[in-house]
Amino acid sequence: MRDRIRAEFLHIEREAGSDAEFAVKAWVRPDPSGADGGGGVMSLLRGKVLEKAGVNVSTVQGTFAPEFAGGIRGASVEQPGFYATGISLVVHPANPHVPAVHMNTRYLETTGGWFGGTTDLNPALPYEEDTAAFHAALETAMGADYPAYAEEARRYYWLPHRGVERGVGGIFYDHRDSGDWDADFAQARAVGETFLRAYPPIARRRMHTPASDADRAAQLAYRGRYAEFNLLHDRGTIFGLKTGGNIEAILMSLPPLASW
Amino acid sequence: MRDRIRAEFLHIEREAGSDAEFAVKAWVRPDPSGADGGGGVMSLLRGKVLEKAGVNVSTVQGTFAPEFAGGIRGASVEQPGFYATGISLVVHPANPHVPAVHMNTRYLETTGGWFGGTTDLNPALPYEEDTAAFHAALETAMGADYPAYAEEARRYYWLPHRGVERGVGGIFYDHRDSGDWDADFAQARAVGETFLRAYPPIARRRMHTPASDADRAAQLAYRGRYAEFNLLHDRGTIFGLKTGGNIEAILMSLPPLASW
Repeated sequence: MRDRIRAEFLHIEREAGSDAEFAVKAWVRPDPSGADGGGGVMSLLRGKVLEKAGVNVSTVQGTFAPEFAGGIRGASVEQPGFYATGISLVVHPANPHVPAVHMNTRYLETTGGWFGGTTDLNPALPYEEDTAAFHAALETAMGADYPAYAEEARRYYWLPHRGVERGVGGIFYDHRDSGDWDADFAQARAVGETFLRAYPPIARRRMHTPASDADRAAQLAYRGRYAEFNLLHDRGTIFGLKTGGNIEAILMSLPPLASW
Repeated sequence: MRDRIRAEFLHIEREAGSDAEFAVKAWVRPDPSGADGGGGVMSLLRGKVLEKAGVNVSTVQGTFAPEFAGGIRGASVEQPGFYATGISLVVHPANPHVPAVHMNTRYLETTGGWFGGTTDLNPALPYEEDTAAFHAALETAMGADYPAYAEEARRYYWLPHRGVERGVGGIFYDHRDSGDWDADFAQARAVGETFLRAYPPIARRRMHTPASDADRAAQLAYRGRYAEFNLLHDRGTIFGLKTGGNIEAILMSLPPLASW
C-alpha cells in the first residue's frame, strides 16, 4: 500500500513536470527494557504539487508505561504488553484548490487485538463536488459501517475552541474486532484502497487551477487550524510526543507553512 | 504599561519607515451566570519590523468551573470565585536576526491573592550579546529573586519532545505573595519595565542586519517550535482554549508564519 501510494504521488508530480523524489528514512524504537522495540520507515516528499507529503509505516512492540497502560483497551499495569503496526499519510498540497488529506490504518494487539482506520479531507477552499466524491467512495467501501464511521469522524475531527470541524470529514473508527479477523483486515485495507482511488482524481482536477494571493493566504490560515488540531487534540500526535516517540515521524503531519 | 509599550513599538516601526498602526479590539467575557464577567482589549500590530506584535490586557472575574476549581490555588468547588487581571505581549519580528519575545504579568485573586510574571527571549538566530543583555537587565531588576525565577523559566519553557528550551530563557514566577502587596505589585511592574528597557535596544541593534533565505527558513522552523510549545504546553493557552476564552486574544501568541 505504501509503495503504491508513493508511486501514485510521484506520477502526479511527473505530470506537473517535477522530478521530486521521496526522502526515505528508517528509524528504530529503543525499547526501555533493551528488547527489540521495532521501528518504522518515513517517506517524505517535498514536491511541486504535493508541497509536503509523508507516508510512514511503523511496527512497534513493547510494554506500555504504567501511566498509559490503563488507558489502552486490553492493557493494564499487570498486562502492559502491546504490538502496533500501521500506515500514516498526510498530504499538504501546494495549490490551495487541492485539498489536504490524511489517512491512517492500524492494527493493535494487547490482550485483545483490533483494527482502526481513518481518512479525512481538509480543503482550504472546499468544493462540494470533491467532498461528495470523497464521501461517496467511502460509503461504497465501508457499506453499512459508513454512517457510524462518518459520524465518529465528525466527532473526532472537531475543534472545540473554534466550534468547527477540522475539514469536511471522512471516516474514523477504532477497536474493530468483529470476530472475523480476515474481514476486519480487509476493511482496514479498504480504507487505504479507497483513499488511493478517491484522492488522486481530486488532486488532478484542482492542481492546475490558478490560485490568487488571497487563496494562498486562506490556505496558510487553514493550515494553522490543522496544526492546532494536531497539537491540541490528535491522540496519536500527543501520545507520541509525550511518550518519547520519533518526533520527526510524528511531526510529519504538520503543514510545511502555516499562518496565524 | 500597555500604552508605553505600544508607543515604543510604533517608534521602532517609524524608524524603519513604516506607518503601521495597532488594530485595537475590545472583547467582553460572557459570564455563564449572567453576571459581569469582565473582558479585555487586544492591540495587534502587523508591522515592517515587528511582523506580528500583540499587547493584550484583560480583567476577568467569575467562578471557576468545578473541573478547574480544584487546580487553582485558593479555589475549590465550594469557593470557586476568582478575579484575574494581566497584560500579555508577544512579538514575532520580521528580521530573523531580531529575537521574538514574550512578556506577561498578572494578578489573581481567589480566597488568596498573588502576582505572577514572566518574560523570555526567543531568538531564531541567537546572539550571546543579546541573551546576556536581556538576562543582565532581569537580574538587576529582580535582585535576589532572579536565580529562582530564571531557573523556573528554564523548567517552564522546556520542550520535552525535542529536549530543548523554547528560547534562551528569562524569568518565570507565579504565586508571589510575600505579605507585602505593594512590594509584590512593584515587582510585577518591574517585569514590564525591564522588558521595555531591555528589548527595544536588542531589536534596534538587529533590525537592519541583512538576512538570507536560509536565515528566514531557520526563523520559520524556529517559529514552528514556538507554536508547538504554546499549543502543547503553555498553561495559559491551553486553559484559555479549553475553557472557552477569547480565541483571537489567546492565539495572538502564535507566529504570523511558521514552517514544519
